[in-house]
Amino acid sequence: MIKTDILIIGAGPTGLFTVFEAGLLKLRCHLIDALPQPGGQCSEIYPKKPIYDIPAYPEILAGDLTDKLMEQIKQFEPGFTLGERADTVEKQEDGTFIVTTNKGTKHHAPVVAIAGGLGSFEPRKPPISNIIDFEGKGVEYIIKEPEMYRGKNVVIAGGGDSALDWSIFLADVANSVTLIHRRNEFRGHLDSVDQVQKLKNEGKINLITPAEVKAIVGDGKVEGVEVHKKEEEPFVINTDHFIPLFGLSPKLGPIADWGLEIEKNAIKVNNALDYQTNIPGIYAIGDVNTYPGKLKLILCGFHEATLMCQSAFKRIFPDKKYVMKYTTVGGVQGFDGTKKEAPKAVVKAIN
Amino acid sequence: MIKTDILIIGAGPTGLFTVFEAGLLKLRCHLIDALPQPGGQCSEIYPKKPIYDIPAYPEILAGDLTDKLMEQIKQFEPGFTLGERADTVEKQEDGTFIVTTNKGTKHHAPVVAIAGGLGSFEPRKPPISNIIDFEGKGVEYIIKEPEMYRGKNVVIAGGGDSALDWSIFLADVANSVTLIHRRNEFRGHLDSVDQVQKLKNEGKINLITPAEVKAIVGDGKVEGVEVHKKEEEPFVINTDHFIPLFGLSPKLGPIADWGLEIEKNAIKVNNALDYQTNIPGIYAIGDVNTYPGKLKLILCGFHEATLMCQSAFKRIFPDKKYVMKYTTVGGVQGFDGTKKEAPKAVVKAIN
Ligand SMILES: Cc1cc2nc3c(=O)[nH]c(=O)nc-3n(C[C@H](O)[C@H](O)[C@H](O)COP(=O)(O)OP(=O)(O)OC[C@H]3O[C@@H](n4cnc5c(N)ncnc54)[C@H](O)[C@@H]3O)c2cc1C
Ligand SMILES: Cc1cc2nc3c(=O)[nH]c(=O)nc-3n(C[C@H](O)[C@H](O)[C@H](O)COP(=O)(O)OP(=O)(O)OC[C@H]3O[C@@H](n4cnc5c(N)ncnc54)[C@H](O)[C@@H]3O)c2cc1C
Repeated sequence: MIKTDILIIGAGPTGLFTVFEAGLLKLRCHLIDALPQPGGQCSEIYPKKPIYDIPAYPEILAGDLTDKLMEQIKQFEPGFTLGERADTVEKQEDGTFIVTTNKGTKHHAPVVAIAGGLGSFEPRKPPISNIIDFEGKGVEYIIKEPEMYRGKNVVIAGGGDSALDWSIFLADVANSVTLIHRRNEFRGHLDSVDQVQKLKNEGKINLITPAEVKAIVGDGKVEGVEVHKKEEEPFVINTDHFIPLFGLSPKLGPIADWGLEIEKNAIKVNNALDYQTNIPGIYAIGDVNTYPGKLKLILCGFHEATLMCQSAFKRIFPDKKYVMKYTTVGGVQGFDGTKKEAPKAVVKAIN
Repeated sequence: MIKTDILIIGAGPTGLFTVFEAGLLKLRCHLIDALPQPGGQCSEIYPKKPIYDIPAYPEILAGDLTDKLMEQIKQFEPGFTLGERADTVEKQEDGTFIVTTNKGTKHHAPVVAIAGGLGSFEPRKPPISNIIDFEGKGVEYIIKEPEMYRGKNVVIAGGGDSALDWSIFLADVANSVTLIHRRNEFRGHLDSVDQVQKLKNEGKINLITPAEVKAIVGDGKVEGVEVHKKEEEPFVINTDHFIPLFGLSPKLGPIADWGLEIEKNAIKVNNALDYQTNIPGIYAIGDVNTYPGKLKLILCGFHEATLMCQSAFKRIFPDKKYVMKYTTVGGVQGFDGTKKEAPKAVVKAIN
């Protein structure tokens, strides 16, 4: 059982910044995310695109925003359960919560902050009827550990940035990489498209277009895929892995059944006070919540997280009085023993 | 008469970021501030100190924060009335407002956003009974145009960073600089203290401590100041300017008489919707407002400004439907003709 003060569901920008604000209040956080990496939409959908409305950043790449937030919260040593989806919540008699993931990992905390954005990112799967039987047995929709493909034969399907970027990356790692797409045209960053062209010319990526994988062959694990190429007879290529990268789409999913008030596919919160839901002790912040005038913007999630942490503090320590200190004045004391501090003014005679 | 869409009172971080969010909605802004420079508390009180809780900035100097905000809003060409205090507001028959400063400058806008922080910064004055007669005639509490001191004799009083930094700066500009402080010890950045020591040793700054200026001499304008130094007879030094730099303290001031609901020296707003005050069309955002759970933090002002602009848009264009577009997706179109835009994904065949 993982224990923490604030259990955060969703490691997007809102969830990440929560760790910082909680840390200032000496509260520890643990984050669960269905994705294998932190950053939410920023890292999954548009890591290489610039955002222009982060205050005081005239321009910042979404991936860099994630990196900066990770750096900012480092002092507060957040825990992560990545690649798992929070599926159930059980309120305990003492008012605390146990949250269990789809892989059975249990988390225990007095406060739950749902920062689930548009929902947990779930892969779009190709229409192959028995694909589910091969999941985890050679079929992966998300690449968590690139090293597991070392020396293996890999078939990637897809025509966007993920398919392009992973083909490039694995060309150096796997024994063979085959990229299959149902069109000749790829849609992605110019750099990535050009590099796949180059690796194809060098024979490091085997490209099959326009084509589709319509079946998986194998006994208990993937041994090959059946490729249907226009105007050709279907053929099988042997492979150890089949990785369809057709994008991830967010689904509110199991959280919708937690007894929370839902409106427009989002969780209703008390925006006049602390972004708490109808279940005391469960808050909802960032894109996942709704209230009159709500804007699904990153900077709004930052504010909501900050106010929410104050309320969480009062819930966890009903008798402690907290006096807010500016970070400039009080510094930032990490759980890792580090302290950031403004240089103090000197008092010195001039003679 | 200066005309604009949103008249912002206060050019602190909140007021500055309002320009950006308004600009995204194609609304123009004009800012009034009592200080000669933008940045509010950040530039007036602690420009060289680091802030640690600006989201995605593990550390940023308050002065750099101001610079970044100025850069971010540049495309939207904000107007500035600096060094003037907004004194009165008059609601017009058509629901618009005219705001007049202490210097008589008039501003006309359909929406007023008060981002006045802790109030307009007013100088702490030394207890010299007739000092008011010399204000603007050789006595200045804020240095707006350093060039006006070129070749002049200047007496600065004070023992903090402002007094130190301006003494250093003017040592190169003025004919003579005398720094007077009632103690031998100065309180400021180590660098500044050391540099004043150096300039004193070089004879470029004339230092008199522990001493106080107790009277001003002159006929219609400053001609000298009477210095009382411990255990010495009072003496007069001739000077063209006397600049007491004893710090600025914020005062809510005239805004308190605008008919707005005030609580704890701050303006009550509807935080459940749009940060509007009890006077429709007048909003209050940032440190200047109060509501249940309010935190006087920079990041909160950013959020409040953003929601407020949406409401202002509806007030100004009741019939226009606004569809929010992410900056990453829609880009940022400046009033100055510039456009920032994310590079589009290419669609390209690989052969
Ligand atoms: C193309 C694009 C451009 C954008 N441009 C801008 C912009 O310019 N400015 C701006 O402010 N915003 C922009 N946004 C929106 C911005 O990305 C979101 O507002 C922001 O990501 C919300 O952050 P969040 O942390 O609330 O949620 P998210 O970033 O959505 O993160 C939520 C995380 O929670 C996880 N999760 C959800 N449910 C579960 C569960 N049950 N178990 C485990 N994990 C779960 C998800 O996997 C996800 O990683 C843009 C979005 C897109 C798609
Ligand atoms: C030493 C110190 C350290 C701090 N550290 C932090 C920190 O670490 N993190 C954090 O988030 N915050 C910190 N703060 C607080 C932060 O500076 C404020 O929250 C922020 O400046 C508020 O911004 P604002 O734009 O709302 O108001 P302000 O910055 O106060 O700006 C308001 C402006 O309005 C002007 N004004 C007011 N009334 C009038 C009028 N009638 N006419 C003309 N002009 C007027 C004032 O002159 C002023 O320039 C700190 C503050 C101090 C003093």
